[in-house]
Amino acid sequence: MSERTYTLTVACPDRVGIVARVASFIAEQRGWIIEANHHSEPDTGRFFMRNVIQASSLGLEPDAFRQRFAALAAEFQMEWQLADSARPKKVLVLVSKHDHCLVDLLYRWRSGDLPCEIIGVVSNHPDLRAYTEWHGVPYHHLPSGSAEEKAAVYRRVGEIFDAAGGELIVLARYMQILPADFCARYAGRIINIHHGFLPSFVGATPYNQAYQHGVKLIGATCHFVTADLDAGPIIEQDVIRIDHSDAVEDLVHYGKDIERQVLSRGFRYHLEDRVLLNGRRTVVFR
Amino acid sequence: MSERTYTLTVACPDRVGIVARVASFIAEQRGWIIEANHHSEPDTGRFFMRNVIQASSLGLEPDAFRQRFAALAAEFQMEWQLADSARPKKVLVLVSKHDHCLVDLLYRWRSGDLPCEIIGVVSNHPDLRAYTEWHGVPYHHLPSGSAEEKAAVYRRVGEIFDAAGGELIVLARYMQILPADFCARYAGRIINIHHGFLPSFVGATPYNQAYQHGVKLIGATCHFVTADLDAGPIIEQDVIRIDHSDAVEDLVHYGKDIERQVLSRGFRYHLEDRVLLNGRRTVVFR
Amino acid sequence: MSERTYTLTVACPDRVGIVARVASFIAEQRGWIIEANHHSEPDTGRFFMRNVIQASSLGLEPDAFRQRFAALAAEFQMEWQLADSARPKKVLVLVSKHDHCLVDLLYRWRSGDLPCEIIGVVSNHPDLRAYTEWHGVPYHHLPSGSAEEKAAVYRRVGEIFDAAGGELIVLARYMQILPADFCARYAGRIINIHHGFLPSFVGATPYNQAYQHGVKLIGATCHFVTADLDAGPIIEQDVIRIDHSDAVEDLVHYGKDIERQVLSRGFRYHLEDRVLLNGRRTVVFR
Amino acid sequence: MSERTYTLTVACPDRVGIVARVASFIAEQRGWIIEANHHSEPDTGRFFMRNVIQASSLGLEPDAFRQRFAALAAEFQMEWQLADSARPKKVLVLVSKHDHCLVDLLYRWRSGDLPCEIIGVVSNHPDLRAYTEWHGVPYHHLPSGSAEEKAAVYRRVGEIFDAAGGELIVLARYMQILPADFCARYAGRIINIHHGFLPSFVGATPYNQAYQHGVKLIGATCHFVTADLDAGPIIEQDVIRIDHSDAVEDLVHYGKDIERQVLSRGFRYHLEDRVLLNGRRTVVFR
Repeated sequence: MSERTYTLTVACPDRVGIVARVASFIAEQRGWIIEANHHSEPDTGRFFMRNVIQASSLGLEPDAFRQRFAALAAEFQMEWQLADSARPKKVLVLVSKHDHCLVDLLYRWRSGDLPCEIIGVVSNHPDLRAYTEWHGVPYHHLPSGSAEEKAAVYRRVGEIFDAAGGELIVLARYMQILPADFCARYAGRIINIHHGFLPSFVGATPYNQAYQHGVKLIGATCHFVTADLDAGPIIEQDVIRIDHSDAVEDLVHYGKDIERQVLSRGFRYHLEDRVLLNGRRTVVFR
Repeated sequence: MSERTYTLTVACPDRVGIVARVASFIAEQRGWIIEANHHSEPDTGRFFMRNVIQASSLGLEPDAFRQRFAALAAEFQMEWQLADSARPKKVLVLVSKHDHCLVDLLYRWRSGDLPCEIIGVVSNHPDLRAYTEWHGVPYHHLPSGSAEEKAAVYRRVGEIFDAAGGELIVLARYMQILPADFCARYAGRIINIHHGFLPSFVGATPYNQAYQHGVKLIGATCHFVTADLDAGPIIEQDVIRIDHSDAVEDLVHYGKDIERQVLSRGFRYHLEDRVLLNGRRTVVFR
Repeated sequence: MSERTYTLTVACPDRVGIVARVASFIAEQRGWIIEANHHSEPDTGRFFMRNVIQASSLGLEPDAFRQRFAALAAEFQMEWQLADSARPKKVLVLVSKHDHCLVDLLYRWRSGDLPCEIIGVVSNHPDLRAYTEWHGVPYHHLPSGSAEEKAAVYRRVGEIFDAAGGELIVLARYMQILPADFCARYAGRIINIHHGFLPSFVGATPYNQAYQHGVKLIGATCHFVTADLDAGPIIEQDVIRIDHSDAVEDLVHYGKDIERQVLSRGFRYHLEDRVLLNGRRTVVFR
Repeated sequence: MSERTYTLTVACPDRVGIVARVASFIAEQRGWIIEANHHSEPDTGRFFMRNVIQASSLGLEPDAFRQRFAALAAEFQMEWQLADSARPKKVLVLVSKHDHCLVDLLYRWRSGDLPCEIIGVVSNHPDLRAYTEWHGVPYHHLPSGSAEEKAAVYRRVGEIFDAAGGELIVLARYMQILPADFCARYAGRIINIHHGFLPSFVGATPYNQAYQHGVKLIGATCHFVTADLDAGPIIEQDVIRIDHSDAVEDLVHYGKDIERQVLSRGFRYHLEDRVLLNGRRTVVFR
């Protein structure tokens, strides 16, 4: 698990020969491909690719790889990146009072399951400071405040994120709605866990809605955040069975398990460069 | 599985002593209870109960049981019924062209998995006649026709159902919308399989909608039919995982498996008197 | 969730009228039954029952209930108990170095999901002291030592357990085999999480065995501990899907999720008096 | 779904450049790759690959492709084949009295879900003739007979299979043990559905064994047949939840659903050339 790897992800218009050219390029650099995934989207004519390369097999550094690869990428009009496992992504976690997702993320992070650097936890409540700091992670208490103060709060969040070179914001049951300009500025870099099976049950009370509708399964959804509430591209979902004997409190209770599982999976997929945006949808190479 | 049983189902206002009185009544008749389920609904103060009694243990016939039980039932304001496994429910199946649910129902029926009498299959298409008749089941081809003819079609369906003493109508991928008066007349006696995870994706194109939303699980829902399209009380649901590599046709394809499983489960629960209506919701004693 | 309740569990030879007599007894004390489960075992002629009674509805204290109920219990040769939610069970946790189950149990315990009192954590390693003590739980480091010292270690474990009035021992990935006399002394009061889908893959290397056999699902099993290794009555099991791309390390890794889920479910069932022994098997009223 | 494709599957010693060479070869023939899967096995140093190529994109016929590819294949010591979707695999089904798997296979086959040609059904019982022949499939009743007659029976099965150019034998709940020489002769070309979660519960009474062990999930396994009973490489498995209220007959009953699902999935994977043997294990590109 700990061997250094480079992960090359590519999205481009589909045509014959892309795999051949990319694979040949990697082979010319003596790169040993450990894992490879491809996807052709017939509707849109887009092609998506992910290659995990053993770092020690390559005769060159990531930057040199990137420079050489750029010409090929330009020829095929690729959106692409090369991630280096020796440089884990920097992540800021936003949370309110519910701690089940945060506890799970911090445990998985310190046990090596989530390959990232957690640069801090921001919360509109003071409650989770002690637990967070026990893990050696800085805790920023930024109360929500009035509507006017909101802009200042998110300016501060942006400063914390940017100053630390942040690459991903994870909303781990953060019960505030982010301002549209914040969403736009960090588009593709914010993921959320929603406590409902989207597109059903948008908003703040999904378990209540699920109860009223008498559904037999409840779920959770990990998705990219856009200005459109709970409607960003979906990364991961899952459900659990409930029945007539479960009250709303029971749904809230059981839901915690599925929320933390779905968030940790979606988060890990993102950290491992398995998630590529495809319009309103995602490609997730699992 | 084939031992004769009586199934007593009860719904009434909750209060202390219901179980004691009902259980004592059954014990006085020497009834051996094989299976028992209770549910108290704190919100509405309703109580629901199901008892399966070994027929051979009782010293009296079902009608005599019903007469004696009536006084107790009145005292507790019970809605109740006593079903007799020796008198399987009479079921009419409505279907269009998709045959996966019909094939599954007919197989489960002839192998003893669905304890009912299938009094006929009605379809707006002629296609499934041979397969249905191979099973010895009458097939009625009633083309949809114009809007004016619609009333006549459903009058005819009602006649077929009533003449045979029908007790349940199963829509096994019947792609027509039933008239509101038909739904009202047979309220609580029509179940449908919807090829989506309700309340998401109402209407005729749920797989297409699921694809467009990029969901990671697709589902099916068995529910009671009301005049409100795809919004009747839910009996059973389930989902399967899909991913970015699945086109709409793949969803349609995989969905067939989950549709037939969900329908056969919901249908069987109903035949076994496990499903009790509770406003917009259901109690399902599994 | 927090309302005080009494839970009456009963196992006895099956015959007509048990439910009637027990329900009538409860009704005579004005007991409001919130939840009820029954099971008749045709093979063995045993009957099992669980009733959850709202404490505030009863006109008498638990001890008075027990005294009155004793005559009825004797008449029906019942094994029975009445648990009081105001007196949570006292639990001792045994663990080695793997912390995923312990972290999960401590979180669920402090968030109210596991209604018990954790009287301490015993480990043959010092590693998990800081995390345990952060939760205010005493940590006892008892190194395994030589074969001769083993008897002393388990004598000490027994003393810790008995001195605190312990009622349940949970092996949360405790990688030592308990002595047969210890198992016998605390029979029915020790549960374990095994990292394999029993009865397959007994012993210390289940993931390795699963990999060698090329199974497509791996699992975990929560069971009562007996002197017969990994063969005690099963309380709960679950599985997750793997595939050819998963190495043994991946199985170990994914397995952690399923282990902690299965243990927390089995543990909670036990705390809520849902688990009744039935020879080599269990009745679990879920 | 119906577009003509070629599927190239490869297994060979792993080394740098295989993907590049194969992808370049395909690109040189103007082949459009619709689906691609790779797997490197670190333990054994084997590499596995599957490419689905759009037939219309290639400028040459399958035989010409095979001839040109042979040199490359030899250089890399490949075991390989090129399957043509226009030439569906010829399959012989063996069955006894249980019909749930056969009914499912015949339905999926006639609805286009299983891309194969069913050349016949062989049974040691006459029961399923009418249903099989309704589908236009020849039915061969070959009674099991005495031990001496057994050799003759399997000689006859081999003749039927060979005469029709058979490529795969599917045991769809065939309750006879195949002779070792028959298994050897058709090694890698016989798949079975076992009604238990292997490696647990080998042999004829898996549900009984599952009941006795008190497991909480039961399963089914689709595997290659070898002379070693129920121990051939596993292709697919799945499970369903049971509980204490389920008798052995219930397990048998619920098991039918999981058996037919697991068999139809394993069978389809094989027909789509997704299954590659890897010693005692399989690679299944799903």
